[in-house]
Amino acid sequence: MEPRLRMTLAYLGTHFAGWQKQENARTVQGELEKALARLYQKPVPTVGAGRTDAGVHADGQVAHFDPPLAIPPTGVLQALNSFLPWDLRVLQVKPVPASFHARRSAVGKRYRYRLAWGAVLPPWEGLRRLWLPRAPNLELLAAALRMLPGEHDFVRFSLSGHAGRGKRGTVRTLFVATLTAGQGRADMIFEGDGFLRGMVRRLVGAALEIAQGRQELSWLQALMAGEASLPPAPTAPPHGLTLERVFYRRPKRWAKGPQRAQTLRF
Amino acid sequence: MEPRLRMTLAYLGTHFAGWQKQENARTVQGELEKALARLYQKPVPTVGAGRTDAGVHADGQVAHFDPPLAIPPTGVLQALNSFLPWDLRVLQVKPVPASFHARRSAVGKRYRYRLAWGAVLPPWEGLRRLWLPRAPNLELLAAALRMLPGEHDFVRFSLSGHAGRGKRGTVRTLFVATLTAGQGRADMIFEGDGFLRGMVRRLVGAALEIAQGRQELSWLQALMAGEASLPPAPTAPPHGLTLERVFYRRPKRWAKGPQRAQTLRF
Repeated sequence: MEPRLRMTLAYLGTHFAGWQKQENARTVQGELEKALARLYQKPVPTVGAGRTDAGVHADGQVAHFDPPLAIPPTGVLQALNSFLPWDLRVLQVKPVPASFHARRSAVGKRYRYRLAWGAVLPPWEGLRRLWLPRAPNLELLAAALRMLPGEHDFVRFSLSGHAGRGKRGTVRTLFVATLTAGQGRADMIFEGDGFLRGMVRRLVGAALEIAQGRQELSWLQALMAGEASLPPAPTAPPHGLTLERVFYRRPKRWAKGPQRAQTLRF
Repeated sequence: MEPRLRMTLAYLGTHFAGWQKQENARTVQGELEKALARLYQKPVPTVGAGRTDAGVHADGQVAHFDPPLAIPPTGVLQALNSFLPWDLRVLQVKPVPASFHARRSAVGKRYRYRLAWGAVLPPWEGLRRLWLPRAPNLELLAAALRMLPGEHDFVRFSLSGHAGRGKRGTVRTLFVATLTAGQGRADMIFEGDGFLRGMVRRLVGAALEIAQGRQELSWLQALMAGEASLPPAPTAPPHGLTLERVFYRRPKRWAKGPQRAQTLRF
């Protein structure tokens, strides 16, 4: 059998109905498997590290497949990129041991959520950044992010129907929640050992409720404590969100445990 | 009469057949005038600083119009952006004296051409950057750019049919030609008192012929001297090019005269 291949993928989520293959919808996995079938002349199933939702972007999504033929990785890279639509690119292809599994071997992920306010954004920036009509309060945004790192039951930040799957249930550990801000822009970075479906967008939605003065920090604290009487956090739009990286080894900075959120300036 | 309004525009050129209004083609001016007609409930002609070609982007195009009704500039900005397609944004609207004319008052422009090589580009970067299969020779690219600043007859860098229009003919002064390079990317910046149709793309095309070893510097020198026996410089693709700024006052750095091209590192 040919060695398993691991791909790193970048996509603009705008025109995709998310990662997962579906009948009658343009998906990342669907386009990828079409290109693979064209290259190998037979169906080639793929496994992705995680399912990104419709409209969410990636510049470090990972997927693997078992090639039915021996084609050198550089040839696979070039052929796939020539078959794929412009908004989906294969950045890297490399052989991995058969024990590597894009989803099961992953130990965590990093996401970035981009915000802007004030001046109108040029179109290429508006594709991947949420524009707010008014400036958020950055002190409050930072204060909200500081509450997030740690091991928590994120049940109030998950889509219903996804609670309790697997042995971890809805408990996850967030190691990093950082705010970088300046010049009418802010980026929020989240690193953790796993994310529930819709979790990052709900964390951002909750932080924005506070930064825009619609909720108090105590409300976020209650949501973090799993308070069931509260409505769930609102979901921020998908186009601000990018899956930046899938970790297959725990980054050294995680060894110190969950870190207090930092605020940096651009 | 209501005061003339000046707009600063950003657009992703990918899906536009250039600036200038045409029957049966999606153009920047066409979309803009559709939005203006919707806002003012009557036709509103616009004048742009210059015509960008199909596929060329802008983040500082300038246009003016004479509004038939008094609507505050912030209202015009918001209304137009709500009517316009996502790939065309009005960044600024401000009143100007009636003597202001977007094209005739302009004293120069700045363009940026973006290159990349090596690693595959993520889709949002590939929209505005030309990808080369092999690294260009940056020393030669810089040497080619160093030959460009000054007052020259750029006839060999213009589209046929555009030679000799106006009192300047095909003579233009290029004040700045700078290369910024690093990490598999290079940006070329051009500032001048005017650009012939297709001129920047042909300057880039010529510089790439040299940087990719297909031509010698002496060939560029002969083209710059107007040598008619040579075929014209090849035209670099439009998607790498962005109109960054239209100048209505001469930048102070031009007072020193055309500058030797600099090479900077990212």
